[in-house]
Amino acid sequence: MYKTSISQVPIESVQMEGVSKTNIQWLLNKPRTPNFAMRRYQMEKGGTIPLHSHSWEHEMYVLSGTGLALEDGKEPLPVKVGDVLYIEPYELHGWEQTGDEVFTFLCVIPHPKE
Amino acid sequence: MYKTSISQVPIESVQMEGVSKTNIQWLLNKPRTPNFAMRRYQMEKGGTIPLHSHSWEHEMYVLSGTGLALEDGKEPLPVKVGDVLYIEPYELHGWEQTGDEVFTFLCVIPHPKE
Repeated sequence: MYKTSISQVPIESVQMEGVSKTNIQWLLNKPRTPNFAMRRYQMEKGGTIPLHSHSWEHEMYVLSGTGLALEDGKEPLPVKVGDVLYIEPYELHGWEQTGDEVFTFLCVIPHPKE
Repeated sequence: MYKTSISQVPIESVQMEGVSKTNIQWLLNKPRTPNFAMRRYQMEKGGTIPLHSHSWEHEMYVLSGTGLALEDGKEPLPVKVGDVLYIEPYELHGWEQTGDEVFTFLCVIPHPKE
């Protein structure tokens, strides 16, 4: 059994183009885990992740705060603590922090196929 | 994009032998998701999941409360909100709720291989 904590995992700034005020922690990852990685995102006030897509899916759980889930050609979808989201492979998606609280969520992804 | 919430997903009693006062919600599962399932456990005061093992791994995130992670032949490991645990395939593990608050955690597992 391996145990760590959000207080022990390094916090990194997300470097993707157009992203602002967003940090990531890789809580569990290769080579320790065989199938999927667990990450924790923290979006500060004004934080944005613009619409983008990729070949892997997301399974997400909102831990704190509020935000908007952005979809291609649709109204942004308000999300809050206890909400659960599934983003399909290749589906366009993005995020915006809203309100005064840090918007925090877990995002689980499969390891890249080698 | 698919959205649900912990307030919308049915709560089921865990039926494994020796388990007490423990509920599960399958937040995301097959056939919607291709690779892994996200479940939320709630262990009430006195809740127990005895030592057991299986062929799949666990990636876990503690959402609320406190508990003990049980391992074979080791001292129980106290866990609390923000703790992250990885249980290897075939590793013996179990859980006990402690304190007055409901012990709640996410547990992500790979889909069974067909």
